[in-house]
Amino acid sequence: MTIFSKIIAGEIPCYKLAENEHFIAFLDIFPLRKGHTLVVPKIEVDKLFDVPDEYLSDLLTFAKPIAKAIEKAYPCDRVSILTVGLEVPHAHVHLIPMNKTEDMNLLNPKLSLSKEEFLEVQQRILDSL
Amino acid sequence: MTIFSKIIAGEIPCYKLAENEHFIAFLDIFPLRKGHTLVVPKIEVDKLFDVPDEYLSDLLTFAKPIAKAIEKAYPCDRVSILTVGLEVPHAHVHLIPMNKTEDMNLLNPKLSLSKEEFLEVQQRILDSL
Repeated sequence: MTIFSKIIAGEIPCYKLAENEHFIAFLDIFPLRKGHTLVVPKIEVDKLFDVPDEYLSDLLTFAKPIAKAIEKAYPCDRVSILTVGLEVPHAHVHLIPMNKTEDMNLLNPKLSLSKEEFLEVQQRILDSL
Repeated sequence: MTIFSKIIAGEIPCYKLAENEHFIAFLDIFPLRKGHTLVVPKIEVDKLFDVPDEYLSDLLTFAKPIAKAIEKAYPCDRVSILTVGLEVPHAHVHLIPMNKTEDMNLLNPKLSLSKEEFLEVQQRILDSL
């Protein structure tokens, strides 16, 4: 069971932003920037393109209002998407508020946020949803 | 009219891999690796999350067989996706064959391929589709 499946099952807490039958979205706890979010299908499949079509066809439309809310809460040029997924064998899409190409490099230093700061980020995005 | 709209209209050539009513996929001419491909909606919208839902819901399922063919033609850990889109104001998704996180950095040096090499890459992926 991946750490994401444990989050989906409610066994591990997360800073949740949205959830439906197929997906959950929560703050990345190793964020590149405030607002960095993960969209995770509720099916334990390693690679994005092995995720069944009924999930793939809803992923970007599920992510869309969240991306808009992130952009509203944390003004930026746009929210871009990225998959890498080598660390957790459970497909996930990064939503990253960005201004320049370099902002999309997952090897950049991560922010270290306190619980209070994560809760503030979560609330700010929820208020924009 | 963006350079991608000109490609879609057939005014500028490309190394095409697939096309349907909503999308076209062709080789990135500034590839990070052989197989690096762009999936472009046939509607001139700058940012991915401003693309209408009827496109968004088909994008990943359109990209899926292409990603599988790239992986077959150029063995790698997986094909990952990335949007940045600051250079051409027309939404596009990068499909990049990758083995490590660093492979997804669009600021990495690009390959310089001859026309013959591009044609070979195109054919190899088409043969795997």
